[in-house]
Amino acid sequence: MARVVVDVMPKQEILDPQGQAVANALPRLGFDGIASVRQGKHFELEVDDNVDDEALAKIAETFLANPVIEDWTVRRIES
Amino acid sequence: MARVVVDVMPKQEILDPQGQAVANALPRLGFDGIASVRQGKHFELEVDDNVDDEALAKIAETFLANPVIEDWTVRRIES
Repeated sequence: MARVVVDVMPKQEILDPQGQAVANALPRLGFDGIASVRQGKHFELEVDDNVDDEALAKIAETFLANPVIEDWTVRRIES
Repeated sequence: MARVVVDVMPKQEILDPQGQAVANALPRLGFDGIASVRQGKHFELEVDDNVDDEALAKIAETFLANPVIEDWTVRRIES
């Protein structure tokens, strides 16, 4: 059983209203020095050892992310 | 300018319906061998160099996460 992390983020050229809302709110709450915030999704999967990187990439690309507007990364954190 | 990643995940004892929906859908789509999926949030912040770890922890705990139901981690990926 391996643990896999998939991070999905809006592409750099795509507006990220959630992240902008956070970035705008921080100074009002007294937190200065934050230049930008982008918000995405973080998935933690437990997968069988026979699931290979190709299958994980396919899951990330076709199911966890919308590749038109989002970038994704897959990394194994334990195996 | 440093880049900081904050990951926010539902605590282990908290139900995660989004993650369960993903886990249930994967076999229907032909992806087998995924034992569990949990979904959280992933923030990427660009912060000034004078923002210390204590301030980042406070931002994560009080603003990005709901510490009653969520765990969070902060890591710097570049400085």
